Amino acid sequence: MTIDLNSDLGEGFGAWAMGDDDALLDIVTSANIACGFHAGDPSIMRRTCAMAVERGVRIGAHISYRDLAGFGRRAISMPAGQLTDECLYQIGALDGIARAAGDRVRYVKPHGALYNSAAEDADIAQAIAAAVATYGGLSLLGLPGSQHEAAAVAAGIDFHAEGFADRAYTPAGTLVSRSRPGSVLDSESAVAQAVSIASDGKARDVDGAAVAVPARSLCVHGDSPGAVAMARAIRSALTERGVELRAFA
Amino acid sequence: MTIDLNSDLGEGFGAWAMGDDDALLDIVTSANIACGFHAGDPSIMRRTCAMAVERGVRIGAHISYRDLAGFGRRAISMPAGQLTDECLYQIGALDGIARAAGDRVRYVKPHGALYNSAAEDADIAQAIAAAVATYGGLSLLGLPGSQHEAAAVAAGIDFHAEGFADRAYTPAGTLVSRSRPGSVLDSESAVAQAVSIASDGKARDVDGAAVAVPARSLCVHGDSPGAVAMARAIRSALTERGVELRAFA
Amino acid sequence: MTIDLNSDLGEGFGAWAMGDDDALLDIVTSANIACGFHAGDPSIMRRTCAMAVERGVRIGAHISYRDLAGFGRRAISMPAGQLTDECLYQIGALDGIARAAGDRVRYVKPHGALYNSAAEDADIAQAIAAAVATYGGLSLLGLPGSQHEAAAVAAGIDFHAEGFADRAYTPAGTLVSRSRPGSVLDSESAVAQAVSIASDGKARDVDGAAVAVPARSLCVHGDSPGAVAMARAIRSALTERGVELRAFA
Amino acid sequence: MTIDLNSDLGEGFGAWAMGDDDALLDIVTSANIACGFHAGDPSIMRRTCAMAVERGVRIGAHISYRDLAGFGRRAISMPAGQLTDECLYQIGALDGIARAAGDRVRYVKPHGALYNSAAEDADIAQAIAAAVATYGGLSLLGLPGSQHEAAAVAAGIDFHAEGFADRAYTPAGTLVSRSRPGSVLDSESAVAQAVSIASDGKARDVDGAAVAVPARSLCVHGDSPGAVAMARAIRSALTERGVELRAFA
Repeated sequence: MTIDLNSDLGEGFGAWAMGDDDALLDIVTSANIACGFHAGDPSIMRRTCAMAVERGVRIGAHISYRDLAGFGRRAISMPAGQLTDECLYQIGALDGIARAAGDRVRYVKPHGALYNSAAEDADIAQAIAAAVATYGGLSLLGLPGSQHEAAAVAAGIDFHAEGFADRAYTPAGTLVSRSRPGSVLDSESAVAQAVSIASDGKARDVDGAAVAVPARSLCVHGDSPGAVAMARAIRSALTERGVELRAFA
Repeated sequence: MTIDLNSDLGEGFGAWAMGDDDALLDIVTSANIACGFHAGDPSIMRRTCAMAVERGVRIGAHISYRDLAGFGRRAISMPAGQLTDECLYQIGALDGIARAAGDRVRYVKPHGALYNSAAEDADIAQAIAAAVATYGGLSLLGLPGSQHEAAAVAAGIDFHAEGFADRAYTPAGTLVSRSRPGSVLDSESAVAQAVSIASDGKARDVDGAAVAVPARSLCVHGDSPGAVAMARAIRSALTERGVELRAFA
Repeated sequence: MTIDLNSDLGEGFGAWAMGDDDALLDIVTSANIACGFHAGDPSIMRRTCAMAVERGVRIGAHISYRDLAGFGRRAISMPAGQLTDECLYQIGALDGIARAAGDRVRYVKPHGALYNSAAEDADIAQAIAAAVATYGGLSLLGLPGSQHEAAAVAAGIDFHAEGFADRAYTPAGTLVSRSRPGSVLDSESAVAQAVSIASDGKARDVDGAAVAVPARSLCVHGDSPGAVAMARAIRSALTERGVELRAFA
Repeated sequence: MTIDLNSDLGEGFGAWAMGDDDALLDIVTSANIACGFHAGDPSIMRRTCAMAVERGVRIGAHISYRDLAGFGRRAISMPAGQLTDECLYQIGALDGIARAAGDRVRYVKPHGALYNSAAEDADIAQAIAAAVATYGGLSLLGLPGSQHEAAAVAAGIDFHAEGFADRAYTPAGTLVSRSRPGSVLDSESAVAQAVSIASDGKARDVDGAAVAVPARSLCVHGDSPGAVAMARAIRSALTERGVELRAFA
């Protein structure tokens, strides 16, 4: 029994900080590092890569729409070829910096609005997969059962499904929308769900029934002291239950 | 007798075009391609790389200060480490895109204000050289006898000196400032100077005396119909005199 | 019989030029001036305003999504309140510069993807109208019969409908999509349509029947020598037929 | 006896926060609000203006070099006319938003590297003063005895000198460089210096001698809990000594 823990890191920009990267990097096994389009200037990217290398945390490119003003949470309509090129640019930029830190980019995860678009829109998912396939040597991290997964498989790219410890699942195995009551779990439930997904590949849905969550990675957050504490509790609980924490291959 | 011809390419951005890249790529042997900081969005970068690969033109990263509004012609004061990171980011981004086009970045040339800063300021030259050395597998292109060259040599990087066909030289072998009358040569004189530099390593200075210009590359421009015609005339004259046009190693 | 001629101006950025502003400003009565979000840096804005003031051309704010890389042709999803603020920012910025040139911003026209969004999406149209109403003293220019017009009317803002000399109209009075054959008229037909709209408020639709086009302004382009020649021909034809060219009130 | 308290506000951008604007706006009488070039997106600008209006705090434009990546702390070399235009753009943008919040921009203060440049470089100071004079109805806030003040006076602009409660002064009345030990005062000394400047127009220099500090405003900070507490202590001490806190005219 092994599972990966991933988190969004390096999300400051210039003088602005975000999240507790230092604490998170002691918890996770994979770091989704911002590439300058929604966050992450070159020096923050380098510092984050260096910290990841020091701790043996795997480096992933957290690619985004070009949207500093909206933190990549705003979808931008564009032709598929243009999106592919924007992805290649970001992957290459982070890979150049990761190399300076003594490692390489190993995987790619879309951020924010691009994550949602990739999950639902086949054209966008394919545009991202085309960049990743062209670059070579990379896998993709995302939502299981999504267009994102389908496009990765079709392009011959290794796809790693991620689950969420702190989000309620529907009977169909999708996430309950954040706008619904009960969509976000408390710390205790999140820890239990993390263990259940990691050890059994299952969560309890909103009705209490078992639902399959075939995740090879769990996404944890570090944007508040509470979030870091929860991530730490998840890591401890997994280790206690004998789940090995290891970056996906 | 061999010489390289280099030119600045891919200097559009989004809907804006600049220069006649298509014509230039039939003339030069090395393409200094903008990396997104002074010009060059990811799709323009990819198109320019693809055209270069198609014609066997060598790809170089034309790195710049982050200054779209000023086309990289405005110096930005910053700590040396930050500048190194900004260079790495740009080199990596173009390398990712060059790879998608079937080649790699082979050399680096600073653009605009960064070119001038690198020539005169040892700290800035060293910050750039640090990025290039860290990235690995790259050489530098710049002004002979400059801080830029000294920093490259000190960092163990292969440095290629460039000369200018259309610029008047001082007795000391430096360029006559553009603000002086006679600083820019007419087409006929430029062709003659190109041949002289390529075949003898010498130009005539403003007083008509021979001055050493130890260049392995000549910089030509494509920002006007006249510039393209001059570049074409320089290429023809060099070929006629038996100078082989070849990218520096 | 009076009509206004409007055109998109000041669409360069930094070192990049676009269109023949100088020629256009001798033809039009209203200048839609880019405000820095899709094009137009502060110095280009000031130069364009100064040229407009010199010729007695009315200044309008050509507001856009924040999208230099896509020239404002890419829609960006965002909350309505945020869009209102982005519009206010652009209007104020141009107004500050127009004031330095001796005039003020008199009207607002959305650009590119924002123009299309405003025409079709009531929320977006209302967000723009809210900015214009709050700023005060401004009218709106756009597509007749659109959500844009409805929102302007509802907000108590004077709305000026624009027509297109060189675009084919459907029997319903909407524009034939650019992707359809025959959607763009040749110069001779465009001149005839301009005269017909200005003098009778009517165009011929694709079937040759008369269709009402209640425009108080005609949009002309300057992005090619052919476009400038067509704009000049339209102006001449209108003047010959006794149509007075005058900025809308 | 009256004095103004000013502080830098609205320095977040998009998803990034900075400083405790809410606390500061209960303390100061003048708000230097970022205009989008070093910080401050349109929605943050609007929210900050609204909070200032609600509390009767005067709105000033905190103009900067175009440098989000460097938070305006990096000087950018540019022609004077271009700088004037960039200032006008920012002043107009904030004024448009201030108007939506029910007030107007009343004064201008340069930020970061532009503040330092304005203090030392006559050309830059004049470029800023030209923008302020052209816009009309505005005063300038800055360092007494600087090129900034000289340029304001020469342009006929009302100049308000500011002092610093928490910075040590030299016998010449200039600030001790931050790199020197003792350059930054502890909270108790800062409160005493604030009272001394406000009531006597004097501070104690590093040798304990009285030095004239002819300030009509004191700059306070809110970038840490300690800074906010110090600002609050300064306000209380001034009020207790009968100094009236009031925005400069």
